[in-house]
Amino acid sequence: MERNYIKYYRSVNYYETDQMGIVHHSNYIRFFEEARLYLMKQAGMDYRRLEEMGIIIPVTFVRCNYLVPLRFEDEVEIAAKITKYDGIKMEVSYEIYQKETGQLCTRGITGHCFLDPGLKPIRMKRAFPDLFAKLKAMIEE
Amino acid sequence: MERNYIKYYRSVNYYETDQMGIVHHSNYIRFFEEARLYLMKQAGMDYRRLEEMGIIIPVTFVRCNYLVPLRFEDEVEIAAKITKYDGIKMEVSYEIYQKETGQLCTRGITGHCFLDPGLKPIRMKRAFPDLFAKLKAMIEE
Amino acid sequence: MERNYIKYYRSVNYYETDQMGIVHHSNYIRFFEEARLYLMKQAGMDYRRLEEMGIIIPVTFVRCNYLVPLRFEDEVEIAAKITKYDGIKMEVSYEIYQKETGQLCTRGITGHCFLDPGLKPIRMKRAFPDLFAKLKAMIEE
Amino acid sequence: MERNYIKYYRSVNYYETDQMGIVHHSNYIRFFEEARLYLMKQAGMDYRRLEEMGIIIPVTFVRCNYLVPLRFEDEVEIAAKITKYDGIKMEVSYEIYQKETGQLCTRGITGHCFLDPGLKPIRMKRAFPDLFAKLKAMIEE
Repeated sequence: MERNYIKYYRSVNYYETDQMGIVHHSNYIRFFEEARLYLMKQAGMDYRRLEEMGIIIPVTFVRCNYLVPLRFEDEVEIAAKITKYDGIKMEVSYEIYQKETGQLCTRGITGHCFLDPGLKPIRMKRAFPDLFAKLKAMIEE
Repeated sequence: MERNYIKYYRSVNYYETDQMGIVHHSNYIRFFEEARLYLMKQAGMDYRRLEEMGIIIPVTFVRCNYLVPLRFEDEVEIAAKITKYDGIKMEVSYEIYQKETGQLCTRGITGHCFLDPGLKPIRMKRAFPDLFAKLKAMIEE
Repeated sequence: MERNYIKYYRSVNYYETDQMGIVHHSNYIRFFEEARLYLMKQAGMDYRRLEEMGIIIPVTFVRCNYLVPLRFEDEVEIAAKITKYDGIKMEVSYEIYQKETGQLCTRGITGHCFLDPGLKPIRMKRAFPDLFAKLKAMIEE
Repeated sequence: MERNYIKYYRSVNYYETDQMGIVHHSNYIRFFEEARLYLMKQAGMDYRRLEEMGIIIPVTFVRCNYLVPLRFEDEVEIAAKITKYDGIKMEVSYEIYQKETGQLCTRGITGHCFLDPGLKPIRMKRAFPDLFAKLKAMIEE
């Protein structure tokens, strides 16, 4: 069975800092996206292929708590996990750690829905039963 | 007395879209920042001057709900308001409207604290009594 | 007759700075795009409408010289001009000034071609004779 | 002796695309930076440490030719090489390949100078003779 969590690694780029000398807060939302798409890929749901199948998964909400700032060249570990899926909505949770110190730096959650290319909701159970079952199984794990 | 809310206007740039054909969700966090710094400037707290005075106001949390996607060239109105200030923490709320339709597209809130250049908390009441009083007055309005 | 140059105004956002305390060099390429799309709009070639007509105008090259750094809150004037159009290729030139000092800060040029949605070249003279004539006239001005 | 070239690998993130369905052209300038800082690190010139030593290396010019567009999830190889260093100016050249096809997608060059924290030029030979010698040796290789 597919796992519903992953650890994703990357380091902080210079262009991700701002004049405060730390990572600009908007970039963590992008780190979340990187980790989420990696998680989905590991779970057999390659997002490029999903879009080709006509499934778009936009973000419906973001919540992010900034605990400790990350800096240029910091090695980062992002733990991401699918924490909710009911056939219509999905939630993914994130914890971002500074690898060297092991410190938890950022914690967040994103909400998602499943839309067709015209941005209308997809009834996953009917339209994509295999994908529905896979996600359902992951969350009931 | 200074107002604790503003309306800020801008349009959507091409580079702010993604391959979904809509504004990438991380960019709304940047729109919030634009509106917040404009609000602070209107309220007599020019952020460039604050940083020169040794006051840094990082973001401690972000919450954002995406209701209707914005697209390239959309004219946008952002209503921003200081909704909390207790001498240590500040909260700012945002509503982003598509100007043409008047539709509410995004709703959000950011949390902030006041730090010195070494990223240590500032006791605003003691260190910057004028600024403290100004913010306090705004929120009690 | 439509003008082939414009002046475009904007200010520098906080998130456009990096830890050097100046605007990150990649962002000037985005400022060029803002000015270029504004220029095209003023010239009666709204880019959103062009894309709807099936015309995509990607960037084939960028050259940019950084003379003086811009900083947070700087008011910026961008002079943009169509400097070449031969029916297949277009070039646009840019000068970015810091408004307060009048100093020339950045100078650049971008090259463009005209593609259909499948990213194949469009023969503008045949496919869009009106647009071809308009651009041709602008450059011969 | 330190090498003056590297190969750097990364993949394309979703947030790096635009509504054309390809990587936004400004992002290649950021890819160049990632490769350049990796090159400098491999050559024993960790940029974080350089900034701590009071050396800032801004970009004086960028040239970039876009040959073939990159897309979301493309695996990318960036070959970067120091092609000029005369004690005052440095140039770095880049070639970006799509790994799967081996296709050359982007070619570019960036120019740099060496400044102190007040953004004044540093005479490298006098102020940092070891670093000067290291860079000099690399280019004469």
